[in-house]
This record gives sequence, structure tokens and C-alpha cells, in this order.
Amino acid sequence: MSVDATLAHIDANLTQATDRLLELLRIPSISTDPAFAADCDRAADWLVADLQSIGIDATKRPTPGHPMVVGHVEGDGPHLLFYGHYDVQPVDPLELWDRDPFDPQVEDTAKGKVIRGRGAADDKGQLMTFVEACRAWKAVNGTLPCRITFFFEGEEESGSPSLVPFMKENADELSADFALICDTGLFESKTPGIVTMLRGMMGDELTLTGPAKDLHSGMYGGVSINPIRVLTKILAGLHDDQGRVTLPGFYDGVPELPDELRAQWQGLSFDHQAFLGDVGLSVPAGEQDRTPIEMIWSRPTCEVNGIWGGYTGAGFKTVLPSQAHAKISFRLVGDQDPDAIRESFRKVVQDALPADCTVTFKDHSNGSASVFETDDPTFEAARQALSDEWQVPAAYIGCGGSIPIAGHFQNIVDTTPMLIGFGKDDDQIHSPNEKYDMESFHKGMRSWVRILAALST
Amino acid sequence: MSVDATLAHIDANLTQATDRLLELLRIPSISTDPAFAADCDRAADWLVADLQSIGIDATKRPTPGHPMVVGHVEGDGPHLLFYGHYDVQPVDPLELWDRDPFDPQVEDTAKGKVIRGRGAADDKGQLMTFVEACRAWKAVNGTLPCRITFFFEGEEESGSPSLVPFMKENADELSADFALICDTGLFESKTPGIVTMLRGMMGDELTLTGPAKDLHSGMYGGVSINPIRVLTKILAGLHDDQGRVTLPGFYDGVPELPDELRAQWQGLSFDHQAFLGDVGLSVPAGEQDRTPIEMIWSRPTCEVNGIWGGYTGAGFKTVLPSQAHAKISFRLVGDQDPDAIRESFRKVVQDALPADCTVTFKDHSNGSASVFETDDPTFEAARQALSDEWQVPAAYIGCGGSIPIAGHFQNIVDTTPMLIGFGKDDDQIHSPNEKYDMESFHKGMRSWVRILAALST
Repeated sequence: MSVDATLAHIDANLTQATDRLLELLRIPSISTDPAFAADCDRAADWLVADLQSIGIDATKRPTPGHPMVVGHVEGDGPHLLFYGHYDVQPVDPLELWDRDPFDPQVEDTAKGKVIRGRGAADDKGQLMTFVEACRAWKAVNGTLPCRITFFFEGEEESGSPSLVPFMKENADELSADFALICDTGLFESKTPGIVTMLRGMMGDELTLTGPAKDLHSGMYGGVSINPIRVLTKILAGLHDDQGRVTLPGFYDGVPELPDELRAQWQGLSFDHQAFLGDVGLSVPAGEQDRTPIEMIWSRPTCEVNGIWGGYTGAGFKTVLPSQAHAKISFRLVGDQDPDAIRESFRKVVQDALPADCTVTFKDHSNGSASVFETDDPTFEAARQALSDEWQVPAAYIGCGGSIPIAGHFQNIVDTTPMLIGFGKDDDQIHSPNEKYDMESFHKGMRSWVRILAALST
Repeated sequence: MSVDATLAHIDANLTQATDRLLELLRIPSISTDPAFAADCDRAADWLVADLQSIGIDATKRPTPGHPMVVGHVEGDGPHLLFYGHYDVQPVDPLELWDRDPFDPQVEDTAKGKVIRGRGAADDKGQLMTFVEACRAWKAVNGTLPCRITFFFEGEEESGSPSLVPFMKENADELSADFALICDTGLFESKTPGIVTMLRGMMGDELTLTGPAKDLHSGMYGGVSINPIRVLTKILAGLHDDQGRVTLPGFYDGVPELPDELRAQWQGLSFDHQAFLGDVGLSVPAGEQDRTPIEMIWSRPTCEVNGIWGGYTGAGFKTVLPSQAHAKISFRLVGDQDPDAIRESFRKVVQDALPADCTVTFKDHSNGSASVFETDDPTFEAARQALSDEWQVPAAYIGCGGSIPIAGHFQNIVDTTPMLIGFGKDDDQIHSPNEKYDMESFHKGMRSWVRILAALST
């Protein structure tokens, strides 16, 4: 095998690789909105065809929700699995996009070329870094360097309801030596990292109902319960003045950071002023006795992700609404139990309800936190390959996001997850104007070539 | 003049009168939404033509917003002015309507016939009770019984921005002995009332901004300020545990109810259990040391009429939003000063902002409370006419709503307002499925005939 020739092939074919990614980005595969179900299916078909075009035995596999894509190629050496997801987040508020989110384009910016469009960074662009690395390897070397299983999901942005059942039903097929998961970011824009610590997440939605219908505040104001007022009071009570979450039992299972890791993180060049400054902020707003990097990587949170009730249009309407709603998520760490926290949250809400007010809840996602041991020398080989490509030492890092799949690989198919990604902090994933740097895409492909070489020797 | 013949004419022509009202209700004159500006104009044209058809010298009068309609008819005796508004509230949530809100219809219900559609009760149906009474009077008697000025507004549901300037510019033309204002309700479904006490209203909208753009809660959760959390904390602090508003100075100018009026109200057959039970409630939720009727008629309130921020669609999105919003209104009584309360509210919000959080405000309506003296014997004559029509003693009552026009007649054109209306508590004004009882419409017309007779003798 020739690594250099493969890297050169990638450099020479960057335009074609970009065009393929743009094609995939044009498919509006928003998994959380049933209106886009056919588009999710279309994205799966596109990936099956693309894998088949490089000789991989790929099929679309039905689930009760959006389909999985599974592909196999045989080979010697270690058995690697690669995971990514082809579904994307919703695009609202649409008016804040500078372009149609599903008419992606390469744009020249002050910081270099970027691929702009929904899913560019999360996760279609990242997913394609590996597919393109394999395409180049095959073109140059004739075969891939080891046995590889491709596993693409279409429900990652909507709580992955079909994932665990599918993995359990197909455990033999999805078991490998290492699962390469490409859904995370660089440590900072020039330094790659391997994530070894992930927060979990529990999502819940509540609807408070007061009067049986919307009322006129002139007629009922002062005598009727207002569910918005009840909701704001409940939500305002979820944090204390120091930024700690007040739910009983919330911190059960939250570990203190080991001294060694704390020292390692303190050695990282994390500039929290720049991190916050990029988004117009200046002061870390979490638990006041924690460092910013702890707030993001190793501390649990409670956030209101959406709230609505009453009249929200132009002008004014003196309505006393019948209902008020909120979507709430908890980022979890260590051994925090998502089910116990959901129960505690719901009890706090129930106990806070005044007369004439009822609540209904709706489950959203539910995943525990994960910590991965890096003792296996394969981790060090991958870290070195990344360091070679980016010309700086790659780091073992934490990640504030929740990637439940990592835990599933450990627990369901007994496969060690290895989280490597090339996103940047300013990619605006889940937000308007999402982008993926051409540098992330290009060096991402090249990184995988080096990692494949390192892991298959 | 023949009152009995006029009443008989109304009875005989109820179908035609209803058809005219349905025609007016078909015009979607939503004043708060600029998309319906042409429809507001069309409603004004319709009224001008309808007044002209009964011999009234009516014209559409431009304003910077929606037009006024002013009509005159000469005559002997007292000079009466009649006020109503042709604009209506928005119709969302549209999915809660059982029919198209602008395809009105007469429906048979368990409680009798109702006219269903947006504006049926507020205020097109009420407005037309007087127009139809005049039409019948003219048809039977040849001329109207006294000098009458008709004055219809098209911005009542959007804060009446053009009203005060228009009244000031046309003060001579709009000055009369009494201003009959038909935008209130019966005391209860079989007992009419004349409103002598009205709450004022101050409306404000606030937008809190934290990060410069929407963020991913995985990446920023725990370290970034969340404007929804800030908003809920501010709103939750606006009331204390006893239901009192906490704004400094809020109760300045709030009078205690005179013993005489308290006694009179205690004598009214107000069944607050039934009033609340109609809308699925059981417990008065306002200031805990006040009676329900005080809460509605004579105590000030603070209500959140709308709240929104973050992701509010189907499914879940782990966004940390850049902004959170609320629309808030204060019902005012006695000598409370709307400007002082707006200032106090905004200062409380400003003072509560944490680092990295800014606020912008938007004024909505602003009207003081009103109390009207009923010493003039004309009030007693009108009350007797109402008692004759409804066959029960009519009452002097309070009203929780805000009808700033009443104060404007007093203060700008030195005209005594007399608030008489025929709405019922279950009319669902400002809500889905608004209706006006056929009884309200029919006996409303008949009431005005009796009142015209009583006031012009």
C-alpha cells in the first residue's frame, strides 16, 4: 500500500469529492419532522449507491423509523467499523440563513473556503471524509487495507429510537475490533483530538394546562390561573443562584474530575475568552465554582431548549392561554441515571402545580454519559496518525455533546469506540448557516488515510 | 314615534339583519396584522355604505393606520354619539376553530342559536345592534329620534394608535351629550348592565438576547447564558406567593373599594364557581385576600400573554437560543399611572439581567382606568329601558377589560360615556370559536330602540 500516493489522489480529486458531498447535502433529510421522511429514505439510497460504487456490499435496512445503511468489505488485519449519521437538524429559524440550507455551496470567507449548508458539518461532511478516504485508497491500491463495516444511521438528530433494537438484532454483524465514530470536533481549529469522555442527555417536554380554553385577560385576568406564569416559576426554580441544578438527587453519580485529567486539561491551550467571544459572550455562566472547560466537558447541565405559549405573533393579543409548553434537556456525566433524573424532574413539576393546573410529559432522548479507556496501543497509533497529518500533537479530550452510539458500541456489541472528528467550534451545527471548513473536509479525508494505514499494519 | 311598532319591525326582520352581520363578519379585518390592512379598509367601506343606506351622512376618514368611519344625522333633543369598532382579533390557533373564522354561520346549540365567527361578539355583532335599531326606527318612523353621530374605529384590537390624534383633530365633530359605547357584556346571561368602572391596560414586549446566535447545547451547554432561563427567572419574580405584583410602586393609586360599592357587588348574584367552572377552573387564582369579583373588576393584574424562544416545533432540538421573548400586559385600576408602571417594569428587568444578556422593549397599548359617575338621570333612564327589555333590573357593574375610548370621550371631547353591551361570558372573544348569541343580537337591537326612546323624550 502507498499512503503518499493515496494522499496525493485525495488532493487531486478534492473537487469531485466536494461535488459528491454537495449532492448529499441537497437532500433535506430532517429526521425529526415526519414531512421529510421520504427525503431521509432518499439520503439512505444515495449512500447505498455511493458505497456500492466503490465495491462495498451495502444495503438499506428497514427499521420502524428511518432506515439504516450497512455495508461490508472483507480484508485482513483488524476489523474496523465506521459510524456516521445521514440525518440533519431542522433549519428554523429559516430567516437567519444567508442561503437556502439545502442549496449548499462552497463559499470563500475571510478564514478560507467553507462548505455551507445544513448537515455540512453534522454529520454528512464528516461521514464523507471516511467514505472518500476509502474511495481514494481503493483507487490507488486496488483493495481496502482491512476488513471494514460501514454503519450509517438516519435518526441521530431525533433520539435514535430504532438504534438499540437494530444493534441488538444485528449484534454479530455490527461487532468489530474498533468503532470509528466521526461526529465530534477538533480540539481547536488546528489541533485534532480523540474524544474519551462524552456527556449523556435526557430530554423531556412538558405541557401545562390551566383553563380549558384560551381566555380574554380583560374578563378573566386576575381570577384565572395563567399556565405561562406557572411554567416560568417552575423553570426558574431549576437552578440556584450559583448555577447548580436543584433537582433532588441530580448530582448522584457525578464524579469529581481525577487530578491527573484536571492537570492534563489545564495544560491544554483552551482560550475560553475566545471561545465565548466568538458568540458574543464574555462570562462563563455555569456553576460558579467550576472552570469553563469543566462546565462543558465534565459537569451536568439543565437547559430549556424551547418555550412557547399564548400569542406569539405580530402585535398584541390580551389572551390568557390555556396551555404553556417547554422542551428541556439535561446533559449528564459519570454515572448519572437518566431515568432517575427524569423521574425527579417530573416529580418536582407535579409537586409545584397549583390548583386547576395539570401537566403532561413527552419523552425525548435518553442516554448515559460515557468514559473510554485509552490503554490499547491502537489509540496511540491513531493519535500519532492524526498528529502526523495536522503537524501538532493530537490530544485526548472531552466533549460536551451526547453521542449515545459510543456507549452502545461498548455495551451492545462489545466494540471499543474511538471518536475522531474534524468539526470546528464555529461550524454552527444545529444553527442557521451551518458550515464545514474545506480544511476539515480535506484534512479529514487525509487523516483517515493515515489512520487506516496505522491501524491495519 | 312608535316604540312597539319599531320593536315589531325588528322581530319581523331578524333574518335580514343577521344576513347583513354575516356579510360584515366575512371581511377578515384583523387590525394587528399588516397582511390584513386591505380587509380593514374594506370593512370601513362596507360600514360607510350601510350607514348611507339608512340616510346617514357617513364617510371613511383616513388616519396613519386603519380608517375611521364617521356618520351624522341631524335631529332634535339630546345629541348621542355611538361608538363601536370594526376590527377583530387574530384567529390563531386556527386548528382549534370548528369552522373557518371568516365563514360565519348561525348555529343551533344546546343553549340556543348563536352567530359563530371572528368578531361576532367583539365587536361587529355589538356594533350592528345599534345600526339595526336605527334602521328599524327609520323604517317605522321616517326619521331618527334625535341627533346621532356614528363613530367606528378600526384599530381597537391593536392599541388604537390613531384614535387620540383623530379625536383631538375632530373634537368639535365628535363632541356630544352622551357617548354610547357598545363593547362590553351583560352582567350575566339574562341580566343587562351599564359599566361604570373599567380597568386600564399597559402592554409591553421584551426580547432578551444572550449569545449572538443560536448555539448547540452540547458544545455550549453549561458555559453559555441561556436567555430563556433569564426570562423565566424575571417573569417568575413578578408575583409574590400571595398573587400580588412585586413591581416597586405598582399599587400606587390603587383605591380601596368604597363600602357602598362593595355592598352593592356583594348583592349581585355573581356565581364565581360557575364563572370559573365554565372554563374548567375551580379556584380564584389572583390576590388571595380579594373576592373573585374584586379580582376581575377592581384589582390590577400582571399577565404574560405570550412567551417564546428556542425550538418549538415537532421533535427535539438541543439548541441554546440567542433570544427569548415575552408579551406582558398589566390591567390597571384607579389612578395607576401606565407610564410609571412601564418604567418600573423595565427597570426591574434591566436590574435583573446577568452579564452577557441585553434587552429591548416594544411599547404596546397604554390606557388608564376609568370610573364614571352615574348621577345624571339619563343613566337611570337607560337603566330602566334595559330593565324593561330584559325583564329584570339592570345593574351598574364593573368590567375587567380595558376600553380606553371611554376615558378619551371624557377627557378629549368632554362627553359622558355610557357603556352598554350584550356579550356573554362564554362568547370566547379573542379565542377560537368566538360567537354572539342570537339572543344578544336580537334583544340588543330591541334594547337600543327602548334606550333611544327613553333618551330622546
